[in-house]
Amino acid sequence: MGNKTWTKTADSRSAQREIKRRAVLMAGARLFNDQGYEQTSLEDIAAALNITKRTIYYYVQSKEDILFGCHQLSLEFLGEVMEISRDDSLPVAERISRLIRGYCEWVSTDLGASLAMVRAHSLSPERREALHEGKARVDFQLRMLIEKGIREGVIRHCDPRLVAAGVFGALNWIPFWNRTDRPVPHEEIAEQYLAMILNGLLPGAGGSKR
Amino acid sequence: MGNKTWTKTADSRSAQREIKRRAVLMAGARLFNDQGYEQTSLEDIAAALNITKRTIYYYVQSKEDILFGCHQLSLEFLGEVMEISRDDSLPVAERISRLIRGYCEWVSTDLGASLAMVRAHSLSPERREALHEGKARVDFQLRMLIEKGIREGVIRHCDPRLVAAGVFGALNWIPFWNRTDRPVPHEEIAEQYLAMILNGLLPGAGGSKR
Repeated sequence: MGNKTWTKTADSRSAQREIKRRAVLMAGARLFNDQGYEQTSLEDIAAALNITKRTIYYYVQSKEDILFGCHQLSLEFLGEVMEISRDDSLPVAERISRLIRGYCEWVSTDLGASLAMVRAHSLSPERREALHEGKARVDFQLRMLIEKGIREGVIRHCDPRLVAAGVFGALNWIPFWNRTDRPVPHEEIAEQYLAMILNGLLPGAGGSKR
Repeated sequence: MGNKTWTKTADSRSAQREIKRRAVLMAGARLFNDQGYEQTSLEDIAAALNITKRTIYYYVQSKEDILFGCHQLSLEFLGEVMEISRDDSLPVAERISRLIRGYCEWVSTDLGASLAMVRAHSLSPERREALHEGKARVDFQLRMLIEKGIREGVIRHCDPRLVAAGVFGALNWIPFWNRTDRPVPHEEIAEQYLAMILNGLLPGAGGSKR
């Protein structure tokens, strides 16, 4: 068992398996987004990958497993998005912009969209809870940045919880309208949303004082 | 048949039937929103109303019928929301505010939420198309107001299509997070969203020129 060659082979085999498992998850995410989770069968996913249903069972145990796997992997990528907004030396508005741009790009991928579009009704309560925590983290990050901005006087007074909900609503809704043959580039969406969101968030903003 | 009493009875009978049909639609909407369309059976809806499944068939033919009925009725109410933003004598920003406040209230009802939350995968293509047109109307209304505001110089230059998508995204997302035991009042959400959206939309806004 200490045999190095064997270990190496095993490692590469498990890496291979992980690559293929991810392909299954991505194909699942795409079909769930396009036609609905309930309307998608394991056969559909296998067909999209040109493999048999039997082969799929080598990577996942069930359709629910694919959905949960999608969401887990999606949250992993979302974690990377959050990283780019963590740099404490940057101004708050720049950190918020980075978070929004990154989220916009992420939610425009099949995996990102699946977290926004596919509701977790079909998952077990434990799995739903696990995902809920992951999603709450990015919400918390934006709220924290808004609160910091308010304290520093660079963001006007507002309810950070509701503002964050509004921002993520706008972003999560993107896949609902932009999954077309000619999608609007995510960079363009991010710029328009940021102009709307930031100019509203910054103090001294607004021609009309309400 | 010309008998007045008979006609009256028939009218009142059909009014009664419509009231009860609406009760079925509302119960359906609530359950679809809470537990998912696929996870809800006709039996669940009957049980929520304390009636038998057989009685439900007097009002609707199938679960799909309930979903379509929900969405139709929901669009009817949305039409009323659009009415209050039609007054051409009001400033554009006020009309946009009315539309957003009204939409916020509407999407906080079970019927409004069902249009935002329940995807139409399960409906026939014809029915999906009919609903799509109804939803497109409110989107068009907001875009039209933004374009008018840009022409009048009271709204800064932006892409009306993307801005409208962002606004409706923020609003459509409300039922996804606010269907709790203690929901945030829709008036409060509307004020926070409007402050963010309008101060971003008005010209001369924004401390940071990007």
